[in-house]
Amino acid sequence: MVSNKAVIILSGGMDSTTLLYDILNQGYEVYALSINYNQRHSKELEFARKTCKKLNIPHKIIDLIQAGKELLYRSALTSEDTQVPEGNYKEENMKLTVVPNRNMIFLSLAVGYAISLRAKKVFYGAHAGDHAVYPDCRKEFVEAMKRAISLADWEPVELEAPYLDLDKGDIVKKGAQLGVDYSLTWTCYKGQDKACGKCGACNERLEAFKKAGIPDPIIYK
Amino acid sequence: MVSNKAVIILSGGMDSTTLLYDILNQGYEVYALSINYNQRHSKELEFARKTCKKLNIPHKIIDLIQAGKELLYRSALTSEDTQVPEGNYKEENMKLTVVPNRNMIFLSLAVGYAISLRAKKVFYGAHAGDHAVYPDCRKEFVEAMKRAISLADWEPVELEAPYLDLDKGDIVKKGAQLGVDYSLTWTCYKGQDKACGKCGACNERLEAFKKAGIPDPIIYK
Repeated sequence: MVSNKAVIILSGGMDSTTLLYDILNQGYEVYALSINYNQRHSKELEFARKTCKKLNIPHKIIDLIQAGKELLYRSALTSEDTQVPEGNYKEENMKLTVVPNRNMIFLSLAVGYAISLRAKKVFYGAHAGDHAVYPDCRKEFVEAMKRAISLADWEPVELEAPYLDLDKGDIVKKGAQLGVDYSLTWTCYKGQDKACGKCGACNERLEAFKKAGIPDPIIYK
Repeated sequence: MVSNKAVIILSGGMDSTTLLYDILNQGYEVYALSINYNQRHSKELEFARKTCKKLNIPHKIIDLIQAGKELLYRSALTSEDTQVPEGNYKEENMKLTVVPNRNMIFLSLAVGYAISLRAKKVFYGAHAGDHAVYPDCRKEFVEAMKRAISLADWEPVELEAPYLDLDKGDIVKKGAQLGVDYSLTWTCYKGQDKACGKCGACNERLEAFKKAGIPDPIIYK
């Protein structure tokens, strides 16, 4: 019997949460992985936990706080010295929110876990809206990682990034069809009590729900 | 001015220690990175620390113990349930010592650190003797990682694995010329007080010194 186990990188945000519902709906036996890398918005991890609890999915949160502080400090999301920029996501200053090599780090851990589980697939929710800001959401990057991941073990593991050609509005539409509970997702980079509604991530989320014609169930400041 | 900063993945073993001396000799400003992934032989980390202290190199040891336990458990090196195999390194049972996706995990963290440091190069000591046992020391894997790493940030980082065509005997010869202090390296997988002299790693080390015609300065059980 071919394994239908799959590992998903679950940030607790909209995209990966939608992908989780999507692959469960496709019949995968899903293992969710979240990473605490000292992100300002580590609050997203609570949301990942709540979603996994609701869906009854095994979930691991891995502590990479020291690595976040000591290695990945060149980012507004991990450094206290740099402010999270406000405004539109497409602007140059949003590059301050890039976390050095975040996706490769997450994928590498997910692949290690997949090998231990004898799972054949690793899923992550990179999407078209990310490309302009995040180098590690580019198609070329994903293609290169697919190749590397297929060679990382004697038995190949397959990387899947099925939302690479979708924008966030498409993802919300898909999520609504799948019954995603978006009240259990966190997007704001500031990670305060309520979402700020002003940072690039909030702006993008608000636009996505508007485009999809669906109300956003979370409360903004 | 072009940066001559480089990050090296330093296990505390012979190969990466030789590479450290090698790139210092080439004039790089070197930052060493070691990872504690709950390896049985975490003793190697003390040796990495001693070498960096001797050479006056900045050194970080990153704690990945939880990830090692919870994600990378399918290995004799991270699991208490599986014994470290004895005998020749080329044998099938040595595959028990493969740690799931270890090199991709280490490289991804090293690249994140390089981006934070604005270093342009990441070095690691994969060599020809590893290929038969470790999937993530294969040339194809290294090539795929080079490509992915070059795309991981807007400014490319370059992966260098200069020992990929050398065997361990060649590495010891090179190290002897560079004045490497091999008494400050640790190889044995068992990680006890003295090196066991029987595990695959010890066997390979003993063969390498024999081939190079140089005495091994460490004491065996």
